Order: sequence, then C-alpha cells, then structure tokens
Amino acid sequence: MTSVPSSAEVDRLHAYWQASNYLCAGMLYLRDNPLLRRPLAPDQIKRRILGHWGTCPGQTFTLTHLNRLIREHDLDLMYVCGPGHGAAAVLAHAYLDGHYSERYPDCSQDEAGMLRLFQRFSAPGGIGSHCSPHVPGSIHEGGELGYSLSHAFGAAFDNPALIVAAMVGDGEAETGPLAASWQSARFVNPGRDGAVLPILHLNGYKIANPSLLARISHAELRALFEGYGYRPCFVEGDDPLAMHRKMARALGQCLAEIRAIQARARGGGCANTHIRWPMIVLRTPKGWTGPRHFDGHAVENSWRAHQVPLPDPASRPDALRALETWMRGYRPEACFDTAGRLVADLRQLAPSGDRRISANPHANGGLLRRALELPPVAAYTQAVATPGGVDASPTQRLGEYLRDVMRANPDRFRLFGPDETASNRLAAVYEASGKTWMAQRLDSDADGGNLSPDGRVMEILSEHTLQGWLEGYTLTGRHGLLATYEAFAHVIDSMFNQHAKWLDKARHQVPWRAPVPALNLLLTSVVWRQDHNGFSHQDPGFLDVAANKHPDVVRIYLPPDANCLLRVAEHCLASTGYVNVIVADKQPHPVYLAADEATRHCEAGIGAWDWAGTHTEHEPDVVIACAGDVPTGEALAAVALLKALFSGLKIRFVNVVDLFTLVPQAVHPHGLSDEAFDRLFTLDKPVIFNFHGYPALIHRLCYRRRNHGNFHVHGYREQGDVNTPFELAVLNGIDRYTLAIDVLARVPRLHTSGAAARAQLLARRDQQVAHARAEGIDSEEIRNGRWPAPGARGD
Amino acid sequence: MTSVPSSAEVDRLHAYWQASNYLCAGMLYLRDNPLLRRPLAPDQIKRRILGHWGTCPGQTFTLTHLNRLIREHDLDLMYVCGPGHGAAAVLAHAYLDGHYSERYPDCSQDEAGMLRLFQRFSAPGGIGSHCSPHVPGSIHEGGELGYSLSHAFGAAFDNPALIVAAMVGDGEAETGPLAASWQSARFVNPGRDGAVLPILHLNGYKIANPSLLARISHAELRALFEGYGYRPCFVEGDDPLAMHRKMARALGQCLAEIRAIQARARGGGCANTHIRWPMIVLRTPKGWTGPRHFDGHAVENSWRAHQVPLPDPASRPDALRALETWMRGYRPEACFDTAGRLVADLRQLAPSGDRRISANPHANGGLLRRALELPPVAAYTQAVATPGGVDASPTQRLGEYLRDVMRANPDRFRLFGPDETASNRLAAVYEASGKTWMAQRLDSDADGGNLSPDGRVMEILSEHTLQGWLEGYTLTGRHGLLATYEAFAHVIDSMFNQHAKWLDKARHQVPWRAPVPALNLLLTSVVWRQDHNGFSHQDPGFLDVAANKHPDVVRIYLPPDANCLLRVAEHCLASTGYVNVIVADKQPHPVYLAADEATRHCEAGIGAWDWAGTHTEHEPDVVIACAGDVPTGEALAAVALLKALFSGLKIRFVNVVDLFTLVPQAVHPHGLSDEAFDRLFTLDKPVIFNFHGYPALIHRLCYRRRNHGNFHVHGYREQGDVNTPFELAVLNGIDRYTLAIDVLARVPRLHTSGAAARAQLLARRDQQVAHARAEGIDSEEIRNGRWPAPGARGD
Repeated sequence: MTSVPSSAEVDRLHAYWQASNYLCAGMLYLRDNPLLRRPLAPDQIKRRILGHWGTCPGQTFTLTHLNRLIREHDLDLMYVCGPGHGAAAVLAHAYLDGHYSERYPDCSQDEAGMLRLFQRFSAPGGIGSHCSPHVPGSIHEGGELGYSLSHAFGAAFDNPALIVAAMVGDGEAETGPLAASWQSARFVNPGRDGAVLPILHLNGYKIANPSLLARISHAELRALFEGYGYRPCFVEGDDPLAMHRKMARALGQCLAEIRAIQARARGGGCANTHIRWPMIVLRTPKGWTGPRHFDGHAVENSWRAHQVPLPDPASRPDALRALETWMRGYRPEACFDTAGRLVADLRQLAPSGDRRISANPHANGGLLRRALELPPVAAYTQAVATPGGVDASPTQRLGEYLRDVMRANPDRFRLFGPDETASNRLAAVYEASGKTWMAQRLDSDADGGNLSPDGRVMEILSEHTLQGWLEGYTLTGRHGLLATYEAFAHVIDSMFNQHAKWLDKARHQVPWRAPVPALNLLLTSVVWRQDHNGFSHQDPGFLDVAANKHPDVVRIYLPPDANCLLRVAEHCLASTGYVNVIVADKQPHPVYLAADEATRHCEAGIGAWDWAGTHTEHEPDVVIACAGDVPTGEALAAVALLKALFSGLKIRFVNVVDLFTLVPQAVHPHGLSDEAFDRLFTLDKPVIFNFHGYPALIHRLCYRRRNHGNFHVHGYREQGDVNTPFELAVLNGIDRYTLAIDVLARVPRLHTSGAAARAQLLARRDQQVAHARAEGIDSEEIRNGRWPAPGARGD
Repeated sequence: MTSVPSSAEVDRLHAYWQASNYLCAGMLYLRDNPLLRRPLAPDQIKRRILGHWGTCPGQTFTLTHLNRLIREHDLDLMYVCGPGHGAAAVLAHAYLDGHYSERYPDCSQDEAGMLRLFQRFSAPGGIGSHCSPHVPGSIHEGGELGYSLSHAFGAAFDNPALIVAAMVGDGEAETGPLAASWQSARFVNPGRDGAVLPILHLNGYKIANPSLLARISHAELRALFEGYGYRPCFVEGDDPLAMHRKMARALGQCLAEIRAIQARARGGGCANTHIRWPMIVLRTPKGWTGPRHFDGHAVENSWRAHQVPLPDPASRPDALRALETWMRGYRPEACFDTAGRLVADLRQLAPSGDRRISANPHANGGLLRRALELPPVAAYTQAVATPGGVDASPTQRLGEYLRDVMRANPDRFRLFGPDETASNRLAAVYEASGKTWMAQRLDSDADGGNLSPDGRVMEILSEHTLQGWLEGYTLTGRHGLLATYEAFAHVIDSMFNQHAKWLDKARHQVPWRAPVPALNLLLTSVVWRQDHNGFSHQDPGFLDVAANKHPDVVRIYLPPDANCLLRVAEHCLASTGYVNVIVADKQPHPVYLAADEATRHCEAGIGAWDWAGTHTEHEPDVVIACAGDVPTGEALAAVALLKALFSGLKIRFVNVVDLFTLVPQAVHPHGLSDEAFDRLFTLDKPVIFNFHGYPALIHRLCYRRRNHGNFHVHGYREQGDVNTPFELAVLNGIDRYTLAIDVLARVPRLHTSGAAARAQLLARRDQQVAHARAEGIDSEEIRNGRWPAPGARGD
C-alpha cells in the first residue's frame, strides 16, 4: 500500500513542486538573476519570451507525485508528456533530480548552471518548448499532438516490470489518433506486458479555446472512459494542499489496482477479459499557481495562461512586478541553497539513479537494445533454375521468415498491421503466434481466428495506433515491422515525419542516445494490384514523403522478387536508427535471382542484369531500368518483345532495389558515384525507366546526373479505375507494350524501321485490353507474369 | 409519431430487403441468368468474383427502414455509407428505387438492365465495391475508412431540414479519425443545422478479425456513446421479423427525439448544452441471411462472410448449389415481375423523386451550389507607394476579407481551423461570427472566448474532423476554408488524396455530378517562422503530396505578399472542382505589389518584376526566381546586395505565385508555354530559385524545361532547430547572403571578380547569425524583412 502523506511530507512535496514551477517560470523569462537574489530588473528578462506556462504546473505536480510513488515502491516508471509544449515541466524535473546536469554538465546544479538552463530554453540554438530527443527521459516527440498514449503502450508491451505514466493533454485528446489510442488498453496482457497509467490532464483550455472534454458533464466524462474500458479516478481542484493528498491517494490506489490485475494474471489465471485498468482524470486550472489576473483579464484558469502569462516585463513595470511577485511566491530562497542547488531535504524526494524518471533506461532504448536473432535467410529463399522460371508471393515468403524471427525472439519482436496480416499474405506468422486479443473471445474464434492473449501480431484498424505502438516499441529498444496497404500509408505520413525527425536529431545532436532499432514499414497491396479496390487504393506517394526526410535516417527499398525481399528484410531487421520503407507486392511474381545473386544485388542496391539484357560488353542502344516488382516484370517482358522484334538491338537492363543509389553520393550515403552511375546509365543513351511510384520521384532523385536529360520515366500517373492489373499498367504506361513502343521512339536507328513493330505492339496491347474487358481477367500470358521465352517470335 | 408496422407491412419490408439482398448477391456472382429463371449453371458465374457481401445485409436492412421513415414523414434524408466496400448495398437500393436507371439508362428496370448492373459491379471498366462519385446519392468516397461521420456532419451544418443517416462500420470505428469525429455532435446547433443520425453497425468482424466494439460489454458500449454525448438506442438480433419491428420502432423514436431537440431550439429557447442526440447501435450477424456454413466453416456471423461467402461456384458444384439455394431464398420470382422490374407492391416502399435517398439533391451538391457573394477585394488591399515600403501580415488581411465574406454569406460559408484561428492571425472573422460552441459555457468565456452556438468558425483540435466537415460541407454545395499549420497539413494527407480522387472521377467520369465548390486549404504558420516550435514544426512537404494528384483538380498558390494573398483567396473562393492549396505566412511581410499589380501578377501566376531586377530589355546574366513570401523577401534582399556590389550585373527577378505555371502546358492547364517559359528563364543563363518548400519539387516540375540544367534551387533541406527566422534561412541556404554567393558562383564573369564580394557576404552572414545567437532575435535590418534601399552600398 502507498502511504498517506503526513502534513510534513505534503509540505515537502509542495516545496518540491514550487521549485519545479519556479524553474518553469525562469525558463520562460529570465536571462539573468536566476535565483532572484537581486530585485528583478528589466535587463534580466529575455529579449524574446517564448514558451508555454499553461501546461507546466499540472505536469510538475504529477511528476512530483510520481517521484513519491517510485520511491515508495521502487518502481521502474517512465513518463510520457503528451500536452503540447510541455517540455519545461519535464526539464525542470530532470534538472531537479540531477540527471539533466549529468547529461549536460554546463547546466550544473548551481546558480550558473540554472542560468544556463534558463537561457537555453526556447532560445535560438537552444532547446525547444516541447519534448524532443534532447530531453532526458523522453521517448516522445511532442511537437505534433496525438501520439502520447500509443507511444506509452508501445513502451509497455513486453516490459512486464515497467509502468508508463502517460500524461494526455485535453487538447491532444481531441485528435483522432489519441481518441483511437484509448483502446490500446485492450491489447495489454498483464501477464507479460507492463502497465500504462493514463493521466488525462483537464487543463481546461487549448491555445485559445476551452477544451471539449473540460466542458462536458462529469457523468459523460466518467461514462466515456468507462466505455473505453478504464476505471477513471478523478483528482480535481485548485487548493494545493488538498490536491497533494488527493493525488497521492489516487496514485496509490491506481498502483494497487495495476498490481492486483498483474498479480491475477501472473498467478496463472489470466483473467483476460473485463480488465479495467485504472486511469486518472486530473482537473486543475490552466497555469495553476501562476498570475491570477493581468491587464484586467483572468490569466490563471484561462486560455491566456497558455503561453506567456505576463507580457513584456522588460518594458512594462507592472508586468515586471507581477512576474517578480509570482516567482518569489515559489520561495526560491527556501528551495535552493546558497550555491543554487536544491536543498538536501527536497533532493530526497527524487528517486535516485536509474529510478529517476529522467534517467529511466527504457527512455534511451538503444541502451537496452538486443539485436534480433535472425535465422539464416537462405532457408526461405526460392530456388531459381532459370530467372523468372518460378513464381513466389514475396510477402508470403516474408511471412515464413517473420514467423521464425518471431519464434527466435519471443520477447522482443512484434508484427503490426491493420487487420490485413492474412490479406497481405503474411499469415505464416500465425504459426508462431496469434493475434494479441484481450477482449471477449467466442467459441467460434477457435475456427481460424488466431486470437490469443499471448499473441505477438498486433492488429487494430488504426494505422495511427499501430504506428504509435511500433514507435514506442522501437524507441524502447525492441523490434518490429508494420505492414500496411500502400495507399493508406499516407494515413501516417505525419507520424513518419515526426519519427524521422526524432531519429535525425537523436543521431546528429544527442550523443548520449544509443541508436534504437529501425522502424520497418512494409508497403504492400500495392498500387498496381487493386483489381477491385480501384482508384482510392492507388497511391504510391508515401515514397515522396519519405524521400523528403534526412538522408541519414531514411531508406527505401523496392525488391524485385521474393528472394530480394527476404534479403532486404534481413538487412532492415538488423539495422538501427532508420525508417526502412520496403515496397513489395503480395501477389505471386516470378523469382529472378537465386539466393546468392539476390544477396549481391541487394547489397549493391542497383545493378545490370546481364541475363536480361542483350549485351555485356559494349555500349547499349538503350537502357531499360526498373524499380519495383510489377514494373520489373513488365520491363523484362518489354525486353523480350524487343529482342524478338530486333535481334540486333543492344539493351542494358538495370534493376534498382535501393532507391537512394540514384542520388549523388553527396546527397545520400547510398548514392552511386557519378562514375558508377554513368557506367550503368551511359552518358547519352536513352534510359526507359519503369518505376513503381509517381514518375516525378525518379526525376527528382536523378536530375543532377549527367544523362538525366535522356531519362524517360514511366510510373503511376493517377489513372485508374476498377481495372485488371494489365489494364491498369496500360492506363499508366508501365506495361510491356508501351515500354517497347517508347524504346522504338527513343532509339534513333529504330525511328524508321520501327513503324511496323510499333503498329504490331499497339495492336497486341489493345487486344490484351479487350480481352481483359471482355473476360474480366487478364489473359493467361499476362496473368502468369511471364514474358515470351527468349527467342520466341514476338508476334 | 412513426407508426408501428403491421404484420403485412413487415412482410412487405422484408420482401423489399430480400430483393435488395438478392441484388447484392447477384452483383457479386452472376454474369447471366440474373433472375434465376433457369437453373444456375457454372457459365453464368463471373470469371472473377470480387466484392464484399458481409456488410451488405445490415445496410440494405437499414436503407429499407430509412425509406419507410422518409415516406411516413416526407423527410429530406441523406445516407452516408461508412463500412468498407459497402457500395453493393447502396447500389441495390438506388437500382430498386429507379434512380440508378435514370442516371445509367442501360441499367434499366428490367432483366437486361439488372444483368448489366450485375456485370458491371466490381468488373474491369465497371463500378467499384465501395462508394465513389459514380454512386448516386453518395457524397462519401468509401475506399479509405474513417470519415463517414465527419462527412455526415459537414453535410448537416446549415441544412436545417436535412437528416443525415450515417452508417458507421465497426471496423471503421477503430480508426482515429472516426473515433474523434463522434464529438462532432457537440458542434451541431439544432436551431440552424440539420441532424446526423449515426448508426453504428456492429457487424462483428472486419476482414479477418472481430471488431473491437463488437467484443466489449454492453455496459461499456452504452457508456462509451453516452460519454460521447449520445443516447444510444440498441437494435440487436438476427430474427428478421423481430428485427424489422425493432428497427422501425428505433428509427421512429430517434426521429421523434431529433424533432424534439430541434423544436426546443427553434422555438426560441435553444437549450444549447446537454443535448443528447440519438444514435442507433445495430448489432446483426455479418453476412446476415447469407450462407450459414460452407466447407465445414461458419460463414454467416463470421469474418468468412466479409468478402465472397461461397468460393468458386463456377468449378465447385457444391458451391454452385449453395449459391442457388441462397439466392432463391430471397424469392426473386416474388420480388420482380415478368419484365424483371420490382413488383408494384414493393415499389411503393421507396420514396419518390428527390425524396429517394439515391436522388437526394444534397448528395449532388453542385446542383445546390450558390456562388459566394464576394466583397470587392480592393477594399482590403494595402496601398503601396514603393514596392516593399510597407508591411502587412498576409493572413491578417485575409482575416478581414473572410470576415466580410462571412457577413455576406451567413448561410453558406464557414471557416475551419484547429484552435489556431487567432494564432494564425485570422481573428478578424470573430467580428462577424464567433466559434461554434454547443458545450458548456462559463461566465468567464465572455472575456475574449468568442464562443457562440451561432458561430461559424469551426475549431476543434482535430485536423481530421475539420477536413471531414469541410469535405462534407463543400460536397453538399457550400463553401469554406481550412487554415492549418503547414507542417501538420500532413495529418490530412490521405484525406486530401481521397478528396482529390473524388473530384477527379466526378469531373472526368460522372457528367451528372455538378461541380462543387472548391475545398480551400490555407497552410500558414509556415516552415520558415517556427522560432520556438523548432524542427517538428518544419515541414513544407504537403505541396509534394498535392502535386501528385490529377492536374485538373489541384492548384497550388504561393502569394508573395498580403495583396496577392487577397487576390488568390478571392479567386479560390469563387472556384469549383478543385482543391486549392494556398501557402501564406502570418507574420508581417513587406507588400510589394499594389492592388492592380497584384491582380495582374496573380492572374498570370508568374512574372518578372522589372522594378526588382536590373534590366527590362536585354538578356540577363542571371535569373533570380522565387516562390513564397519568406523566400521572396530574401531573394529581393539578395538582389539588393548584388546591385550594390556589382553595378553592371544584369538580373532578372521572377516571382511565381501559381506553382503549376512551371510545368509544361501539356502536363497542367496552368503550365506556361515553352516559349513563355524560355522568355522568362532564358535558354542558358543560371537560374537561382528560392523556394518555399523542398527544392526537389521545383526540379520535378521543371525538369522537362529547356534551361532546367541551369536551375539551382534553394529551399528547405530538413535543417532546423529552435532558430531565429534568419538563422533558419541560413541553415537551409535560402537567405540573402547565400543566394548572392550562389549567384557569384554561377555567373561566369564573376568567378574571379567575385572572390572579395563572396568573403564580404559570408562575413556579413556570419555576423547576422552571431547576432541572432547572442541576442535571441534577428537584427533589426533582418527582422524588418527589408532589403537595403536601392542604391545603398552593400557593405
């Protein structure tokens, strides 16, 4: 049981809270006189005051009490700061517990160090006002709102001893991703996972509006969270001393409930339905304990407390006086000793060592990372007698590999997907593990439902929640892969952006952060195979979004066949510090490269396939290049057509697996040297490039290359309906016939001789489209993904 | 009051439902023998069976009963189909009520027409399995899930007589956007708005999993929706006759509640808090009335009913028999007459004319569109004596304009934004209208809260909900603008994609759809002014996403100053059938163009600013081009620096407002002719292009242009922290000094003479950065956005 704090302890808790609030105010305003040892003067005020006071006191209050809980129970507890611009509160606590100074020795535990913290906050070249990789103890990029809960749950999975306290802002709570992520609790298995304690902070106001949840009735609020499956515990008020007691009691009770749920599950009898996890609704005034009024307006408990509660104290004496009165009200002289260090009596209130929230090892997950045991990929590859002579579904093979990855790493690998794991042909993983399911199960589920409380396949129809879980899981040092329909990867564009930005800053600016496992995204059910889903399911533009992020943290792979996908996956699962984006179809495709060839090809990232082209030594007449499994198949078929039509035509066939080989070395570490690029693509010959995505992406990657003016890129150009795969290819010009016709147009010596061939190719293309329309399916020749055997006549 | 259906009426309702289920099954399977007048034979089965049965019967059931409600009360009622792949149900009803045949006369009300409908469904070149613009009565692109409720609410705003029945799939209900959008009911003013009746369809299963909401307790389900502010009404069961009675009763009761809420509000005393709108929870078996078992597995009430419930009847006699038995169970011979038309007795069950759900005029919103009354923009423009001699905040001016647009169009214009209307400096609109707020209000809100039940400014911290509302509002013929932080526009990337796809198909393939008002997106709080928000708030990549969509439906504008923004906004608010993306900062910027110049410049979309360059007639040494307000300011400053350093240097200054002027005419209707492009950008001179977004976008737009090899684009390159605006510009190379230095490097005759100038420019750049670091703000010269006056010395 958690003890009830004595009056003396409440006083100490209060003092600790005041010290942290003092630091928050100091970070906003002061560039000198950090401990107010002298009267506050205008020139001690920052030139530009940037930061957010409103959310701070509720968070510092919570952190103060979480510290107490940790100390009493020796807890392994992380904190996720959801409210916007909440960093000051977290920094204040990290500074008070000493860990900030360990990470940033110039911000030492004395007056000078405190001043440096103040000066650095929200100042150019300094630290931002929301949580970022710079903030010790955080795994949460707090700039965009909505992901705090899903991050917290991701951290808690497979960490049975961990409790993640997740502060959810009432502004953030209005977002879609956050609203969906409350359901995450239904995926926590108390037998093997840690616990998340959500704390909804009803701060009352956003930037300029009341928050919705602060303005609905108490009954509705309670009903809402009971409906989400929680037992809400309300801590409401504005009287600090009463609130300290309420919060201590509430946290103690929540911890007891968590422990009881876990004890039941871990005692053997996992009551896996009807678990009601506790949560806290903390209702306090926005900008609590800050200035009550200014300029005739309420500040505390108003949206005016959101950012800077007192405007312009450097030039307004009344604001300066109000600021000084406010800050002195926190009694800095009692909180800090003569050196400027927190007084010893208060220092005891923080946990020590790794138990400090700011120093929790899970929040620097790279430290805890254990590389995956990866089974040798060769066992899953397809034997290939002749290139393309055999078919395999790339994702089906991947599923078999992931099954064994999962078996070999039962404590640190999970697969994520929105209800599409089987649809995406990854179902072999169910042989290793079911789908995580803690809600009600029916007898009928035994028939193919694959539901299990112990499942490691995470399925919920929310890409946001899945991505958030995976981010939280990898940021705490574990491994995973999210498979999603390609078109709907755009649902998480902004989450990808924020995670990539986190990795970028962590890598380049935060040396104490150890690299975390890569976040792996598999885009499947690709644009080219949306036979009945149609236009809405056709969008390969996630790659354009991904290509905008820092080259050091993003990788894009388009393996041409199942064997290459396996190699790419193996590489990605072993990598750290990236977002790996892999594009691979789920339908059967020819396998071109034997296992060892696939290894070489994927390691190079790009290469000429001599067996596919017509020449090995001499300069070709044309380069046919491709990236992506469907475009590769069509490009190979185009080569076959051309070979049959023009026996003397010299074709070089180039396949690109790693998209960033195309950009100059100076732009991306995977970029080919100009020499190597020119050797592959020639200096002046036409390059017909068949691409999986929007053609413009290839142009933006290659425009600096010498032969770029001769690049003719075919790709998705936003044309589609309910089409057979072949008709869709024709509509967008990536089909074999259109490619071959383009070659005729680009190779000067075929300009005259090619006229008849062109007519023939057009006729055959039309014939195939007519077949598709009449029959509702592509012809057998097309459907098999085969190109005419070498030497066969082309007509 | 809605009547209780008699037994005879229940029988008729049931027969109508059976007829619609019959059509759904026929659409999935049949390519001949549509009325089963002959025994079912293998060659009558489609070659490829694509479609989704599972969701259909619950929807056809609901539509059958909505028809009854409409008839009894002469309702103006729309239907939004949220469940994935639900089109077959909607098509069946549109066909039965006769409207489908009016739109598509070849699908006539007879056997041949029915067969055509069957053949077309989910077949190449045909219609898809989810709702799209082709489906009469729909405003909802159903390919991506999550937006049904927000679309429904958008349709209901300002349509006081309208009821929008929104069927929410229990899969869809797991998504973030849908979860957030339940809160929309708190923004409906029953005095002036229509009503939304959400119907959560607890169908039980998704593609391969149970749905979460179907597996939580009844108490939790009720609590959840009471928490969201609704009064849930449960209709649960699988016995058709009992269910008909329950559904009729439930709908009658819900309508009575809606009318009571509206009557109270419209009687004068708007009880604007504690409104509890009714909703229905409909729990029926997935694939209800379909095959119960097959192959030893349950089909009905299982995820196996999701798509095709009986596999491969063309080759499996048992499946063929089961299919025939199933379909004959719907008694087609009793439902359809000898011609193949629905029998007269059942035809009466559908409403007639515009009251048919499929023909509701709001669902073809372009028909109801009334152009906005737009005040003359000249009244809002800034007088300009010398270019750049005066400052204005672009969005502040826009706010003044929008205020008066709102006043002039009190029934059909709304402004949408996530709690940032004031932060984005559009606060003048509050002079015309408050923020829509139906939840609790406090006395303290009177002090600047701007909350009002009658407000027309829609603020909720969910970009998804806002975008969904705006889509629903414009698709039903009304007008609006959504202003959002640029970086967080990525939150709605996928919604933008789907809406653009809707507009594309509607324009090119659905002639009976009248053009709807454009959807206007204002991206503000731009990447370049994130002084304290830092890296997470820096992302101009929404433009890359937008540029991937069909050129006929997307426009991108980067007005360089307040006057140009006003002109662009005026144009956009009058346009139809587009998504207009406008990028404009909220901070004060110099105004360069007087009102009439701004008009000419914006109409052209691109142009040389002779006053800014050094020459008018002759071929320049260099072209300095720019797009976006911040880059334009820096580019002008660079010109001033260069003029001062090299009096003989000939500079052409080009500003781009309309980004698609850059692409060839063949690619986008706004594209400049090659001749015009070459005249502006020369054939061979260096072009230093200062761009608002990621530089690659300019390259992908211009790579086909003749002088592209000489384009050197500066833009955001993913470098940033907490920086002053100038330091951020330097980090990314869009600042005046870096631009001027680049000119020195690119103009051959400056290669030697420029060395000293280069050193000088570098020194000044470093000096400015040092100032920013030391002071926390940019120097006054930089801060004012000014460039040295023409003729002033540059050092």
